Amino acid sequence: MTTLFEITTLDDIRPSPFCWRVRLALKHKRVPFDTVGISYSQIPTLGDGSFKAMPVLQDRLAWIEGSSRIADTLESEYPQQPTLFPADPERRFARFVETWVESALHTTIFRLVAFDVWKRLHPTERAYFRSTREQRLGTTLEYAHEAALARLDEFPAALEPLRRVLLTRQFLSGHEPAYPDYLVFAALKWQRLVSDVVLLPAKDSVEDWYTRLDQLAQE
Amino acid sequence: MTTLFEITTLDDIRPSPFCWRVRLALKHKRVPFDTVGISYSQIPTLGDGSFKAMPVLQDRLAWIEGSSRIADTLESEYPQQPTLFPADPERRFARFVETWVESALHTTIFRLVAFDVWKRLHPTERAYFRSTREQRLGTTLEYAHEAALARLDEFPAALEPLRRVLLTRQFLSGHEPAYPDYLVFAALKWQRLVSDVVLLPAKDSVEDWYTRLDQLAQE
Repeated sequence: MTTLFEITTLDDIRPSPFCWRVRLALKHKRVPFDTVGISYSQIPTLGDGSFKAMPVLQDRLAWIEGSSRIADTLESEYPQQPTLFPADPERRFARFVETWVESALHTTIFRLVAFDVWKRLHPTERAYFRSTREQRLGTTLEYAHEAALARLDEFPAALEPLRRVLLTRQFLSGHEPAYPDYLVFAALKWQRLVSDVVLLPAKDSVEDWYTRLDQLAQE
Repeated sequence: MTTLFEITTLDDIRPSPFCWRVRLALKHKRVPFDTVGISYSQIPTLGDGSFKAMPVLQDRLAWIEGSSRIADTLESEYPQQPTLFPADPERRFARFVETWVESALHTTIFRLVAFDVWKRLHPTERAYFRSTREQRLGTTLEYAHEAALARLDEFPAALEPLRRVLLTRQFLSGHEPAYPDYLVFAALKWQRLVSDVVLLPAKDSVEDWYTRLDQLAQE
């Protein structure tokens, strides 16, 4: 018997995204389950009373708290069912980091630095660069630069996914750097080579990671 | 002999992030290389004249264009060297999607919907929810909601990494959905269950992907 405990509302909607992760993981693993809607004040009545948040799953005799722990447990308890974490011969992790870097970081950095790059080009190269880049920017190099300067304070938040990974690992790729790290590093290197603007606070954990990779790049 | 062709500047800075990816990939693979700085106008003089952008790598007799293609080629041509794409027994792909979802999507959705959830709770549950959530938001439920409404037009861009993956695959995890897909789906499901606000344009490719997963969730 498997039961998923979820926060519910007056109209019995179960909104928690963490509970939806578990619902889909249970379906993926073909584990029959029922759900019980509870209110915040009922949380201490579950299991041994130690739970602080939902989801909580009661799977046979075990009580498990938290979507990540539940997903990991389902994966190990039901190994014969389809995996929740497929192997990655298609390099999906690296490709996802690439699409993330290009949409969340390159877009902002490009607006900021295109004007700086233009100033550094040989005069005979500037017209080509300006016209192709302004078409991409949808505005002038100068205006894009000013608009980017006005929103610099938003940049550190864009790196939050990396920052959270660095709480538990030295590199995005594990104990050693690999291509996913280089994808992010290259974006920051680009900005730092051509622009004097400081995008991150000095004590940001991203700075330590950047320094480790920069040493590698210079070896 | 391996040569990396890179765009250079008057002061011989090599700013391109795509070239920096390749530089680090070559070092990772322990491939000795030199670099040649070229200007935009020189691109048509390289190789057979068909190249449109940098980086271009001349590795022994082959010419290769584009950072992704170069990284894939280095990985297959130098299989005895450290891999650029390590296997993923630690579920780094899923964990990275999780940190991305929680920092790029949950933050915005939470500000938008916390007030909607509060309204749907049993009156005896509301004080607890308001005080814990307002502490997390750093403001009132009402103000966070209004501030989020004022920035709704920024939300579609946050899903761009997923949208780009969906250009080439049915699901974030490949031909079949898996836990990385569920992490993103659950965030959107949360918003749609409690809020009438429409966050994505109807023709967004994310909508097709969402519908496929929503059918799965209801089976």
